[in-house]
Amino acid sequence: MTFELPHDVEQLRLRTHAFIRNRVIPHEPAPGDRLDESVRISLGEEAKKLGIFAPQVPVDFGGQGLALRYWSPIFQEAGYSPIGPAVLNLMAPDEGNMHMINLIGTDEQKAEFLAPLAAGTTRSCFGMTEPHPGAGSDPEALTASAVKDGNTWVLNGEKRFSSGAEIAGFAIYMARTVDIEGHPDGATMFLVPMDTPGVRVGHPIHTIDRTIAGGHPHLHFDNVRVPNSAVLGEVGLGFKYAQVRLGPARLTHCMRWLGLARRAQDIVLDRTNTREIFGSAIGELGIAQNMLAESAIDIETSDSIITKTAHLLESDPKAGSALSSIAKVHCSEAVYKVIDRAIQLCGGDGVSDGLPLAQYLSEVRPFRIYDGSNETHKWAISRRASSKRRRAVENGEEFRGNATTSQEIFA
Amino acid sequence: MTFELPHDVEQLRLRTHAFIRNRVIPHEPAPGDRLDESVRISLGEEAKKLGIFAPQVPVDFGGQGLALRYWSPIFQEAGYSPIGPAVLNLMAPDEGNMHMINLIGTDEQKAEFLAPLAAGTTRSCFGMTEPHPGAGSDPEALTASAVKDGNTWVLNGEKRFSSGAEIAGFAIYMARTVDIEGHPDGATMFLVPMDTPGVRVGHPIHTIDRTIAGGHPHLHFDNVRVPNSAVLGEVGLGFKYAQVRLGPARLTHCMRWLGLARRAQDIVLDRTNTREIFGSAIGELGIAQNMLAESAIDIETSDSIITKTAHLLESDPKAGSALSSIAKVHCSEAVYKVIDRAIQLCGGDGVSDGLPLAQYLSEVRPFRIYDGSNETHKWAISRRASSKRRRAVENGEEFRGNATTSQEIFA
Amino acid sequence: MTFELPHDVEQLRLRTHAFIRNRVIPHEPAPGDRLDESVRISLGEEAKKLGIFAPQVPVDFGGQGLALRYWSPIFQEAGYSPIGPAVLNLMAPDEGNMHMINLIGTDEQKAEFLAPLAAGTTRSCFGMTEPHPGAGSDPEALTASAVKDGNTWVLNGEKRFSSGAEIAGFAIYMARTVDIEGHPDGATMFLVPMDTPGVRVGHPIHTIDRTIAGGHPHLHFDNVRVPNSAVLGEVGLGFKYAQVRLGPARLTHCMRWLGLARRAQDIVLDRTNTREIFGSAIGELGIAQNMLAESAIDIETSDSIITKTAHLLESDPKAGSALSSIAKVHCSEAVYKVIDRAIQLCGGDGVSDGLPLAQYLSEVRPFRIYDGSNETHKWAISRRASSKRRRAVENGEEFRGNATTSQEIFA
Amino acid sequence: MTFELPHDVEQLRLRTHAFIRNRVIPHEPAPGDRLDESVRISLGEEAKKLGIFAPQVPVDFGGQGLALRYWSPIFQEAGYSPIGPAVLNLMAPDEGNMHMINLIGTDEQKAEFLAPLAAGTTRSCFGMTEPHPGAGSDPEALTASAVKDGNTWVLNGEKRFSSGAEIAGFAIYMARTVDIEGHPDGATMFLVPMDTPGVRVGHPIHTIDRTIAGGHPHLHFDNVRVPNSAVLGEVGLGFKYAQVRLGPARLTHCMRWLGLARRAQDIVLDRTNTREIFGSAIGELGIAQNMLAESAIDIETSDSIITKTAHLLESDPKAGSALSSIAKVHCSEAVYKVIDRAIQLCGGDGVSDGLPLAQYLSEVRPFRIYDGSNETHKWAISRRASSKRRRAVENGEEFRGNATTSQEIFA
Repeated sequence: MTFELPHDVEQLRLRTHAFIRNRVIPHEPAPGDRLDESVRISLGEEAKKLGIFAPQVPVDFGGQGLALRYWSPIFQEAGYSPIGPAVLNLMAPDEGNMHMINLIGTDEQKAEFLAPLAAGTTRSCFGMTEPHPGAGSDPEALTASAVKDGNTWVLNGEKRFSSGAEIAGFAIYMARTVDIEGHPDGATMFLVPMDTPGVRVGHPIHTIDRTIAGGHPHLHFDNVRVPNSAVLGEVGLGFKYAQVRLGPARLTHCMRWLGLARRAQDIVLDRTNTREIFGSAIGELGIAQNMLAESAIDIETSDSIITKTAHLLESDPKAGSALSSIAKVHCSEAVYKVIDRAIQLCGGDGVSDGLPLAQYLSEVRPFRIYDGSNETHKWAISRRASSKRRRAVENGEEFRGNATTSQEIFA
Repeated sequence: MTFELPHDVEQLRLRTHAFIRNRVIPHEPAPGDRLDESVRISLGEEAKKLGIFAPQVPVDFGGQGLALRYWSPIFQEAGYSPIGPAVLNLMAPDEGNMHMINLIGTDEQKAEFLAPLAAGTTRSCFGMTEPHPGAGSDPEALTASAVKDGNTWVLNGEKRFSSGAEIAGFAIYMARTVDIEGHPDGATMFLVPMDTPGVRVGHPIHTIDRTIAGGHPHLHFDNVRVPNSAVLGEVGLGFKYAQVRLGPARLTHCMRWLGLARRAQDIVLDRTNTREIFGSAIGELGIAQNMLAESAIDIETSDSIITKTAHLLESDPKAGSALSSIAKVHCSEAVYKVIDRAIQLCGGDGVSDGLPLAQYLSEVRPFRIYDGSNETHKWAISRRASSKRRRAVENGEEFRGNATTSQEIFA
Repeated sequence: MTFELPHDVEQLRLRTHAFIRNRVIPHEPAPGDRLDESVRISLGEEAKKLGIFAPQVPVDFGGQGLALRYWSPIFQEAGYSPIGPAVLNLMAPDEGNMHMINLIGTDEQKAEFLAPLAAGTTRSCFGMTEPHPGAGSDPEALTASAVKDGNTWVLNGEKRFSSGAEIAGFAIYMARTVDIEGHPDGATMFLVPMDTPGVRVGHPIHTIDRTIAGGHPHLHFDNVRVPNSAVLGEVGLGFKYAQVRLGPARLTHCMRWLGLARRAQDIVLDRTNTREIFGSAIGELGIAQNMLAESAIDIETSDSIITKTAHLLESDPKAGSALSSIAKVHCSEAVYKVIDRAIQLCGGDGVSDGLPLAQYLSEVRPFRIYDGSNETHKWAISRRASSKRRRAVENGEEFRGNATTSQEIFA
Repeated sequence: MTFELPHDVEQLRLRTHAFIRNRVIPHEPAPGDRLDESVRISLGEEAKKLGIFAPQVPVDFGGQGLALRYWSPIFQEAGYSPIGPAVLNLMAPDEGNMHMINLIGTDEQKAEFLAPLAAGTTRSCFGMTEPHPGAGSDPEALTASAVKDGNTWVLNGEKRFSSGAEIAGFAIYMARTVDIEGHPDGATMFLVPMDTPGVRVGHPIHTIDRTIAGGHPHLHFDNVRVPNSAVLGEVGLGFKYAQVRLGPARLTHCMRWLGLARRAQDIVLDRTNTREIFGSAIGELGIAQNMLAESAIDIETSDSIITKTAHLLESDPKAGSALSSIAKVHCSEAVYKVIDRAIQLCGGDGVSDGLPLAQYLSEVRPFRIYDGSNETHKWAISRRASSKRRRAVENGEEFRGNATTSQEIFA
């Protein structure tokens, strides 16, 4: 029964639960501030000793080797603190990058890039989004280029919203490649150390979230030369790999932020359990009860769709990736609403820095936009539903769109 | 992996899928009409031959012996037609009554009441809801009474919204019993043939739904005498049994209506795939796409929370029953919205009887009220969340409701 | 002060208020039934004597000569009963047809068509919507044709959703006309008695609403010959007139249905003021309070936007027509939600015919579709907002769409 | 016609419109920063010369003497810039304090307190909200006290969320007073210079909004002695005056923030008019169009309910104050949604400080809480609706809460 966790996973969850509460939460920075790098590293060392560090990473690389279908309860425990995911090395963009390198990298690439990333001794970024009108929500519009020159590649282009670039040791850079040596036209991914000549971190973009270290800056590649061994996976398959990365990556966002939603719900439950208004505990007043119930529903439905999607990503990655769009839209809206309701029920304190809720709202607001805006996902969800049904009808399902009264019946 | 069905369950699903489309849908009554009893029986006989009748009933009683965690995909297939659940004998209130008799009935009671009910040769009703101010949303307010007189019980009281009573062969009747022979004060359930003297089906209540046969009438018990063997389960435990019945019963409503939501979505997808407006297929227009996507999200999140709840009802019935409140509220709202959007996108045809959608809306509108109104469930969901958190804090979880700026810091 | 009614209007409102309650409501048909024609006529005669019949019609034609900016309070009083608008002769489609004939008809046309319509001795229909793929939400797609032949016109085409056609004495028929005698290409309106040879009421469309008498049938024009004097307004200006008609017509729908929403709110307030649940009056329970408050907000915002739009339709019809799209979308959704909440709070009675609420829901559900579906209006609202802003920027308003961090600043 | 502005008001609006765009917007601080006091004063001097300063203040005190029913269009123009209201001296809490002093102050009090406040040379605060469990959403819980001692009053108590206190020249302080010299038990308001001994600005509360200068600190009164002439209005009528202040004060919030919502809508319209996605201008894509239309509807319905409430506050202050609750809830939610949608449609830029939208969201989020949380207002709205209907039924309106099928009919 997969809704019940195996014993070892449950133990991992309990250790993570305790560590977050006892060790991580006391080190949380004040609202608006960022996690200090030395604190992250030192808490990470503690986590390694407790056997809870990098749960999603293979044991060979120092992680706990957890199967994807069990990530959710652990990531939720981590996400209960805004800094938990970074401390436990399961935060974006590193987590998605580790996942992809592990799946498609060579042994040499894993040794050079995955090992230190998994250990938390280096950080990474993912260069896909481009300034308008390049590849934003529409990956096909990619303009960054990679041209082969003997045994090296020459990369050019500008990226934007390159989360983590300011502190990254290397980037996964996505560039357009033409049909070459039998490879298809398309995109190719490259592993590029940030100190490679021609790589430059550009204009920072200041956003309202604080949990992704290293900012969301522009990233300039000017005649960056990398060896052929920098190609991650196969030439020309970059768009396919991006999907491989994005499906789980957007689902792990759901997991982490759902943990934070649970924190917000705990805060407001504590508040409404103890505060009084109009002579009653707030939590006994129906307007508050309605909001608390809606948050409980948002949390449980998010948990369920995440669990289903995680299973599907294991058994049928393509279907799982499609379902991850639905999970992303539902969870990002649900999590936002849970925190927004918590703020509302805490009144003036809710919008002050006396409680962390307003900062939580700033953390999750971008989640409705990042990793494909919810509107872009809805557009894709709708198109998939339409074409799936069209194919079903073509394959013999009865067409049901006719109204019997639309046509007059002539006797 | 429980999101993937075992081979035999998947085969059962496929047979049900085909039967509903090929045999049941062609017999659907016109919008506003009811399923003819002879059609139900004859289609039921076909279903028995195909090995798909009463999937949730033990094999010994002629069903398919399906475990609760697999009901959802099958019930959804049945619910794809509004008459499918009645044909396959998995419709309320019989389905819930069978479930309960099977769990707590004696062998004699099973032979007398469960066997014919499972075979579809008799029907049943459940007498719990009472006229105002008796037991409506608040079961504790029960006023119907049962008094022991030697080896018989004398039942009195009036019930309301006794779904199915007009065609039922027997009722499960819930009455208040006092502390007697060591049994606790509380409620007791009785199995009462409808032809017992003193039983009278009263004033009908005409509602907008059509799929529950036998109406929602008042039910009068005037000095109804039944033997001691009519007691279902133990004396005084009626409220507990009602919960046993209601958890799965409200979840199976979710399953069946989700099937109907899928039907509505298919109708509107066919329509938007082929109709044009403003020179484009409607389905390519964004306002329609937004609605189709929201319906897809509603369907998938409903499916997920149902699956999780069904598993939990098996492994931890109490927790499962609590989660079924959340599933009921989410699914009843989701299903309603899916059908409402389908109507909207079909324009004038959507509110005409040229398409069945307006009738579908009338079928599912009461589901937001029946089986405990969504507001009553929200009230319970909120109270459970509050008290669960209160206990957690009492047991050592840190209290998080204090705002640091609420108190001035004196140096 | 226009939010305060002038004395005579307030008196008219009070008389209408009393008449609806004392004389009209007692004659309301059972849910699902229709108003008997003889009852309509006899109550209408009473209303004439009371000086409240046809308030929006000029005094010369037997009405009360009320200015458009004062229609709303009176129409709301009428709409408090589903049959009130028909009794008082301010129901669609007659009301919109009267409005248009009065504005653009000749004296002869007014004598022949407006006078009996205003007196309630004949009824009318409006033939614009066509079967797919003709003019539905997109009037430009009009396919019905009118060809001039000497002093007569020959009309051909099929209409759909011709509300009221089954009992109409005449139709206003909209047909495409080509550039002729200096008139522009476009559409032209014709006043056509229903007994003209070639006019045939076709297939009925059964919808869930009951208040518009005469159904929503198809309407066939096969070589219908009418004299030149049948042209309503000028040749070629039909689309413009349709807008003239539709702006106020969709606003009067808002007024009438807002009256019905007030009725639903009164029903549920009476219920929640007197029923108890969990030991408290329902109306004191917060989840109910939240719903009652949201309904109060929906009612008041609807009232306000109607008032503003009515004023604007008088002072600036083009701007008023644009605002009427916004009013239509807001009010149709608001009214639906008010009635839906009332149903929910009345529990099982809410979906039974023991209360009229479920029928009210069926009355107003189509309003979200009729007169241009809300999605079509939103599409138009968005386009108007975008082009208005584009023009403002072209005319010197500063462009505000640039993000300062989008471009890197080179020093 | 009150929806059309009189000529002089329209001219005032146009001058304000131009001033905000040409002079104020260029001085806006960066997101997260505050308006510099010297800039406020210098721009205010310009505004005085242009005859647009303090439009709501009587001419005798240097304002433009605008009637309340015309405030909305002018305040919206001011609110188009987050700093516009402060520059034009129509910002909270000063604006509400001026309004109240003007209505109930003595000539001496006006000369001493209103004149410099109206001129913008001093600032003020309003001390009503108290730390838990004192007067928060529930004014009756007031604990601050005022005791008469000869010709002086001794004030004690702690206030919280005393917006503006850090830079205020004086406070309006609300304290509980007992029955004295024939005055009723209740609350009394006092005008108290901030340099009075015993007044101390305490712990600041850092909130996410930036437009109210002077923070939201605690305010301590320890044996503060003021002369009898410090009493504002009559002893014991403080709660009544608070309502006098709060009705218009919460409506002017709606006006100002609606102006900011229009700014956000302009930003996103400019963006969607020029950006492309999937090969189309974003503004032509339906999911975006749906959002733009919903924002247009939110803006127009807010504008309408504000206009109606402003009129009612003039003609019937009690009814106007009640309606202002509805306006507050509707507008605060509407404005929030408009800005939230704008953020969403601007993607990554929307949550960055390259656009001001994220800061706008932080400005208006507290508005759903300040001036009575929306939930508190809904509670009051519901109670008013229930008791109004109860009185109507007591006064002869027919009771409509009975379902005809609830009772059985015995022949």
